[in-house]
Amino acid sequence: MNYVIDFAEGSKEQKDLLGGKGANLAEMTKLQLPVPTGFTITTAACLDYLKGDSVISQELIVEIHQHIKSVETRSKKGFGDEQNPLLISVRSGSKFSMPGMMDTILNLGLNDKTVIGLSEKSGDPRFAYDCYRRLLQMFGDVVCGIDKNRFEEQLDFYKRKRQYTSDTDMQAVDWQELVAVYKNIFLEVTHQPFPQDPYEQLVLAVEAVFRSWNNRRAITYRRLHDISDSLGTAVNIQEMVFGNFGTDSGTGVAFTRNPATGEKGIFGEFLLNAQGEDVVAGIRTPQPISKLEILMPEVYQEFIQLSRLLETHYKDMQDIEFTIENQKLYLLQTRNGKRTAKSAFKICIQLVEEGIISKKEAIQRINPTMITQLLHPVFEPEQLNVAEIFAKGLPASPGAASGKLYFTAEAAKKAHDLGEKVILIRQETSPEDIEGMIASEAIVTSRGGMTSHAAVVARGMGVCCVAGCEMINVDEFLEQATVGELVLKQGDCISVDGTTGTIYLGEISYVEGDEWQLLETIINWAKEMAEMEVKANAETITEINTALKLGASGVGLARTEHMFFGEKRIFEMRKMILAENEAAIVAPLNKLKEFQKEDFREMLTLLKGKPCTIRLLDPPLHEFLPQTTAEITHLAEATGRTEAQINDRIEELQEQNPMLGHRGCRLAITTPQIYEMQVAAIIESALEVAKSQPEHITIPEIMIPLIGSYEEMQWLREHLIETIQTIFKREAQVIPYKIGTMLEIPRACLTAEKIAEYADFFSFGTNDLTQLTYGFSRDDSGKFISAYQEKQLLTNDPFQQIDEAGVGQLMKIAIDKARQVDPEMKIGVCGEVGGDPQSIRFLKKIGVDYISCSPYRIPAAILTIAQE
Amino acid sequence: MNYVIDFAEGSKEQKDLLGGKGANLAEMTKLQLPVPTGFTITTAACLDYLKGDSVISQELIVEIHQHIKSVETRSKKGFGDEQNPLLISVRSGSKFSMPGMMDTILNLGLNDKTVIGLSEKSGDPRFAYDCYRRLLQMFGDVVCGIDKNRFEEQLDFYKRKRQYTSDTDMQAVDWQELVAVYKNIFLEVTHQPFPQDPYEQLVLAVEAVFRSWNNRRAITYRRLHDISDSLGTAVNIQEMVFGNFGTDSGTGVAFTRNPATGEKGIFGEFLLNAQGEDVVAGIRTPQPISKLEILMPEVYQEFIQLSRLLETHYKDMQDIEFTIENQKLYLLQTRNGKRTAKSAFKICIQLVEEGIISKKEAIQRINPTMITQLLHPVFEPEQLNVAEIFAKGLPASPGAASGKLYFTAEAAKKAHDLGEKVILIRQETSPEDIEGMIASEAIVTSRGGMTSHAAVVARGMGVCCVAGCEMINVDEFLEQATVGELVLKQGDCISVDGTTGTIYLGEISYVEGDEWQLLETIINWAKEMAEMEVKANAETITEINTALKLGASGVGLARTEHMFFGEKRIFEMRKMILAENEAAIVAPLNKLKEFQKEDFREMLTLLKGKPCTIRLLDPPLHEFLPQTTAEITHLAEATGRTEAQINDRIEELQEQNPMLGHRGCRLAITTPQIYEMQVAAIIESALEVAKSQPEHITIPEIMIPLIGSYEEMQWLREHLIETIQTIFKREAQVIPYKIGTMLEIPRACLTAEKIAEYADFFSFGTNDLTQLTYGFSRDDSGKFISAYQEKQLLTNDPFQQIDEAGVGQLMKIAIDKARQVDPEMKIGVCGEVGGDPQSIRFLKKIGVDYISCSPYRIPAAILTIAQE
Repeated sequence: MNYVIDFAEGSKEQKDLLGGKGANLAEMTKLQLPVPTGFTITTAACLDYLKGDSVISQELIVEIHQHIKSVETRSKKGFGDEQNPLLISVRSGSKFSMPGMMDTILNLGLNDKTVIGLSEKSGDPRFAYDCYRRLLQMFGDVVCGIDKNRFEEQLDFYKRKRQYTSDTDMQAVDWQELVAVYKNIFLEVTHQPFPQDPYEQLVLAVEAVFRSWNNRRAITYRRLHDISDSLGTAVNIQEMVFGNFGTDSGTGVAFTRNPATGEKGIFGEFLLNAQGEDVVAGIRTPQPISKLEILMPEVYQEFIQLSRLLETHYKDMQDIEFTIENQKLYLLQTRNGKRTAKSAFKICIQLVEEGIISKKEAIQRINPTMITQLLHPVFEPEQLNVAEIFAKGLPASPGAASGKLYFTAEAAKKAHDLGEKVILIRQETSPEDIEGMIASEAIVTSRGGMTSHAAVVARGMGVCCVAGCEMINVDEFLEQATVGELVLKQGDCISVDGTTGTIYLGEISYVEGDEWQLLETIINWAKEMAEMEVKANAETITEINTALKLGASGVGLARTEHMFFGEKRIFEMRKMILAENEAAIVAPLNKLKEFQKEDFREMLTLLKGKPCTIRLLDPPLHEFLPQTTAEITHLAEATGRTEAQINDRIEELQEQNPMLGHRGCRLAITTPQIYEMQVAAIIESALEVAKSQPEHITIPEIMIPLIGSYEEMQWLREHLIETIQTIFKREAQVIPYKIGTMLEIPRACLTAEKIAEYADFFSFGTNDLTQLTYGFSRDDSGKFISAYQEKQLLTNDPFQQIDEAGVGQLMKIAIDKARQVDPEMKIGVCGEVGGDPQSIRFLKKIGVDYISCSPYRIPAAILTIAQE
Repeated sequence: MNYVIDFAEGSKEQKDLLGGKGANLAEMTKLQLPVPTGFTITTAACLDYLKGDSVISQELIVEIHQHIKSVETRSKKGFGDEQNPLLISVRSGSKFSMPGMMDTILNLGLNDKTVIGLSEKSGDPRFAYDCYRRLLQMFGDVVCGIDKNRFEEQLDFYKRKRQYTSDTDMQAVDWQELVAVYKNIFLEVTHQPFPQDPYEQLVLAVEAVFRSWNNRRAITYRRLHDISDSLGTAVNIQEMVFGNFGTDSGTGVAFTRNPATGEKGIFGEFLLNAQGEDVVAGIRTPQPISKLEILMPEVYQEFIQLSRLLETHYKDMQDIEFTIENQKLYLLQTRNGKRTAKSAFKICIQLVEEGIISKKEAIQRINPTMITQLLHPVFEPEQLNVAEIFAKGLPASPGAASGKLYFTAEAAKKAHDLGEKVILIRQETSPEDIEGMIASEAIVTSRGGMTSHAAVVARGMGVCCVAGCEMINVDEFLEQATVGELVLKQGDCISVDGTTGTIYLGEISYVEGDEWQLLETIINWAKEMAEMEVKANAETITEINTALKLGASGVGLARTEHMFFGEKRIFEMRKMILAENEAAIVAPLNKLKEFQKEDFREMLTLLKGKPCTIRLLDPPLHEFLPQTTAEITHLAEATGRTEAQINDRIEELQEQNPMLGHRGCRLAITTPQIYEMQVAAIIESALEVAKSQPEHITIPEIMIPLIGSYEEMQWLREHLIETIQTIFKREAQVIPYKIGTMLEIPRACLTAEKIAEYADFFSFGTNDLTQLTYGFSRDDSGKFISAYQEKQLLTNDPFQQIDEAGVGQLMKIAIDKARQVDPEMKIGVCGEVGGDPQSIRFLKKIGVDYISCSPYRIPAAILTIAQE
């Protein structure tokens, strides 16, 4: 059983056993790069140590001795040799980088005797005692748990005594004196002298690294980043090289490309005459790497060469640590460099262009969440650190914006029209608020979840939104928003971070995230590979344009009810709802038809032949009726009715559970004229567009919502086909069309084989389907969902990520049944989960043909599909 | 191919071919009873006739001739023989009795010549011409479509002219003259003389019977009674015997037992010297059959003997038509007699006791709907005919009651306490109305369906209820109920028929339907055969007593929320809901616990070891808060809060879709103390009852409502078991118990195999499951359901009869999954469909172990199961 592996024996694939750092040191050694000689004590050794009595085994000690001997041979130095001492570094290194979590000990092997040897051999006693005091300090901290400040205080005290301003003022004798002081600290704190035996130092250091796997910081970090506790850490032992060996020595860190912008070329910094921790400590300001070209041109050239080699070898941008000892370059570490979203996209594209990676590999490297960062503004991080938080809510729609608070849609619109930047705050929004929402930089609500009206509309428009901010008491009447003692009034300025859900007081500047071109390249590649189509939930011109730019292959869900909320339109809609007999609905429906035709013409023209699924009216009629007394009065005047009549109608239409009420296709069973009007508008505008744009024929896909039985579907289909045939006959022109349905009612899924006989396509409405399958109302679940999450009874929000066990099972049943009848049937998904990567993977598996999501979620969806 | 079958060749099993009447005539012939000779023209002949050109085929005519010849031989008379004429009757007879629908022709074969022969042979010209005029009248009506009144008018005119008061005053010469008048009517109306050829008469009569299958009355009757159009009718030709052959002749009808009460013994009436239609016409009052014993003792004895023979042969009470010609008895028809519900039960029990049928056969003969008639009061039919209808609604709970209208539960209760009979009318009822509902004779609501609060509670209490009476405008504020112009005020009297859904103005007297003992015998027999248990949805002492009396094998659903509505209880409930912190809920919960223990002690004591499933709190908390300003003021005073605080809490608890909101087990996830209290009350009272009644240990089955995931079930189960174990330890006593769940959320069905791991039993809550599977709210579906029924998009109310394709499928999935984990798991159903026979059959098929329904539906359920 080998617990210790020489760098020369490992490779980069062995991260599990050697840790990330050890594996890369081995890889570089294999590539014959200038890596100081050394070996890795494996994670297996660590786990054995932790499993047992936390006593290092004799076998491991023996193995370490053998490998030290081998390093001695190669380095031609002796560990503890008083004339020619071998010094080593001890570094932890687990499979995943856990920054700042475990510590490093340098210069191990020094003691009262070997320090003299090092002094004599290097001819530099200042260097030797500097190294010794560093060892004492790091060993004290890491191995013996002595507070670092105990050492720093003595150094400060000493410098003040000598009136030195900087460490560089310290001479050999000064460090020598300080070493004595440091050794005293050891004795005081641990009641033991600093161990003089190098092997004892080494064993204690290795044990300290092992133990550090289970320190509190480490455990917390692993919890936060979902890293298994059972990995353990490796320990890397390596011959020291010295960047602090005079002015022709130094140490630095460099990236092979710019980690912020992705720009090509070495990007980094270095310090002359310093050891690694000096760079981090920030005592001296490092120089840009370009300076090295002037100071040591040969070393610089070698570094450039090696870093290119490493990048090509690892096929990714590298983050490299190096040391120069007497003009000789050593590489101490290399790893894939962390980077911003923009840089990640740019580097991927460059690497493909340079032939280093394939498009497929590039796609795999893009994390879908990066797209959000790429497209949406983000606040300046420095300003965020000092900003005062007002409240926290749900990150409902990403982005960042500042503006003045307004409590009604009208006030927000008015202020916007006067040139102000406004933020609309409401208890919750309703379709009537739409114009105020469009006018706002950001939207905040105190109620409602990730799929509330505010959230859905904001995401659709790409406007930043924080929803369900329950801690804010929004008083729309008094026009104030209160959190505890803090009261904000209309016109007060706030800043909203929709990506994190945080709301700050005052204004914060932000950076635009408008990197369309980078995104376009990646999305185009992804689309070449994606096996499932991605369409858009979109109905306005802006939304459709955005969707097409972001890669949508068509419109998968155009919600026609949103088209009824303009001022003139809602008036006609209300006239229709108030109509007292069948005859009185004809006139308003005819006007509404003209409005709808206008919309559909625009949509179909814009789509240039791409498919377009239009959903017929879905919400209950009462959603279109006025809610305030002022509006009721106004409507009464405009329609020549009494307010009492209007109130009667409002009351009549009221429902106990509107979600389960008179809506969707049920409206068309009781009042077929509404769907007839809509279908006529769709077909007539499609005929017109077919004439004006004969080169792009879009097949309109008419989608009936809320079907629960084949009887409904059969009746409506026959009924609508009659309407369509009449138009074809009258216009003496024919176009292809489809009639399909949403599957959003459990019963529809369970009887999909029957419904399929009357439907040309299916599209799962996962929002409603989830509500019904769970028996949860999205509007009301806020009251108990947090208790569920606290008790871990619900791990994911089923409205955000498909509930595979329940809703997913029902979908699979439906798909299997439908495909029995029509194996070629197109089946899509148009709920919120269509934008979630995990869900997309599941949907693909159960046989969904396409997904449709809000425009800004399209790129992530395409990417996820391509990555499968 | 035989289209004609002699009575001697058929049997009672051939109803399809011979019709009911023909088959029974054949059967009696086979038994060698005194049946006039004859034959049947089959339904196949009828169908052939109707399929073709409606011309009677030559083959059929030949067959008829052959059979007439055979009748001539046996009767020793000649068809058309002028000296010794054979007369026959022609009667229709289809498979199912269609009363009053098709007609009979008697005395066929008479003409101007044979009438003289008959006169001479009988020595009674009056008799002969009476027969002839009857033939003319019936033939005219049935074959030629001559209005019967044409004949009647002439008879009346003739009698007035002669100053006769009755037909018996008519002499031979009078009839003879009238025959001439009648023949003239023929000529006038049909422009043809009355056919003198007996064979022509016969063929025309047979064709008329065939055609009558498709007359409007017949078609309507078949639609109404769900009888297939493709059965056709048979025609029975039979030698005439004459009840009008003098005073030692006669005709009558008798039942072998009393069809109203079931009492044993011949029950019937007869007329001397009359033909069949005289009894029906009501010109002369018939005599009770007992009189026959005095008039013709031998004939009477023979009839008694024959009727016993028939009853034993048919194993059921018979309805027999007979004729006596010259002291000789003839049987003309026998069939199973129609009877009242009470009679049906009594006869079944008697037949079993007499050894004529088995218990199994008895059970098969009881129609479950008869039970309603047996147990609930019904209005006097005569009074109903003249009563004025006020409105119609849904027959939500059967029975009949009159009383004074009250618009609030308080007013109803007050009036009841003063000794009035009251009827509560509301837009809809809520749990707060419960005391007023108990005080009422009947309940009427203008909204809500068959499973609305009013309907469910009324059925539970066995109180008559008409729900969803949308045509009534109920103004609770003005205290008036309006239908069109008609306005009823508080105190006005109405009568409510919950069996038909009709509401009448004023008071109507009714007959009690309290026939418990008959029911008990039948139910006990049925229980011996039933393979599925029937339990009760019951929680009050009255309900449980009723349920046990009606055959319940335990309580399958005790809804604990109903226990919180007493005055003191609701106050503590409200205090708990208003509590501002966890500490403040302890005191009210402790008081509620004492109330609950009281209830559970009573229930468990009553059940004497029968199983008892108790459902923990289900409705959202806001249902317990006050709704009127007065109540809010009162609560504020009582709790020392401001009204604003209470209103805030009410608003806070408000929900968009309460059906999908914070209720059921979700309450226990956020506030575990409520279920802890309930479970402690259950277990503690069970322990107490176990001590006081050690001979009957009831295992309490604790049922958690609204489970949607196994995570909920697991958490709650572990949590409640902890509570129970603490009690066991404290009391140093242990009893068995079970913890199970309702399956009422689609997701729970879809993941039943997981939930089953943490549940001891399942009970489908089909009401909520149907709501969620369909996405229908029962409260709101009233607005569109009628349109669905009109368009035949929904044939049955899925809340009344299980939707096999959707909800049923989901249940089957759940059962299959649960039984995979635990093949022995008890699975029940406790929704409304548990009382529906069709549904019960389905539930049994998919493997449900027991059903639980409201007490008054239990007998029908047991019966349905036994009949399978």
